[in-house]
Amino acid sequence: MSTLSPADQLLSYRDSIDNFDAALVHILAERFRVTKAVGELKAVADLPPSDPKREEEQIERLRRLAERSNLDPDFAEKFLEFIIREVIQHHKRARD
Amino acid sequence: MSTLSPADQLLSYRDSIDNFDAALVHILAERFRVTKAVGELKAVADLPPSDPKREEEQIERLRRLAERSNLDPDFAEKFLEFIIREVIQHHKRARD
Repeated sequence: MSTLSPADQLLSYRDSIDNFDAALVHILAERFRVTKAVGELKAVADLPPSDPKREEEQIERLRRLAERSNLDPDFAEKFLEFIIREVIQHHKRARD
Repeated sequence: MSTLSPADQLLSYRDSIDNFDAALVHILAERFRVTKAVGELKAVADLPPSDPKREEEQIERLRRLAERSNLDPDFAEKFLEFIIREVIQHHKRARD
């Protein structure tokens, strides 16, 4: 049982949220560095730009991970799609 | 300079992406645990459900963090809004 006042407890929760958000931004930044390298590799090595089977496996895997950590699997899937849409936009901008 | 074949280099990049995605899912799961606790605290302590000033500060901070890590600040902002929309839906579902 916390002995903090509700206002202080809220501040404490917000500190945690801010730390998680900083972690998310930094991991996303690194993820985009890798997808940028993937885009360059695919262009140079003439590999197909998209791979539906790979994407399907990513979604299935993330849904399983989400279930195990009590995160809504539908949200995890939407989240991955949100990121993949951004990656595709990056690739388009890089190509133009 | 990598000595991997393009196909092996792609597999290596994908392993990194899978690790980052697992990290993102687990941090998101923990973030939702905290926002759930925030929702419960606000209901019990009769605190206002939304706080536009706090949200503005979160966006400004994330944009700065994104800039520093070479992530598109507009994407960081869209990302935070995407998560906040989900949090609001969780709160609505919890209330109903």
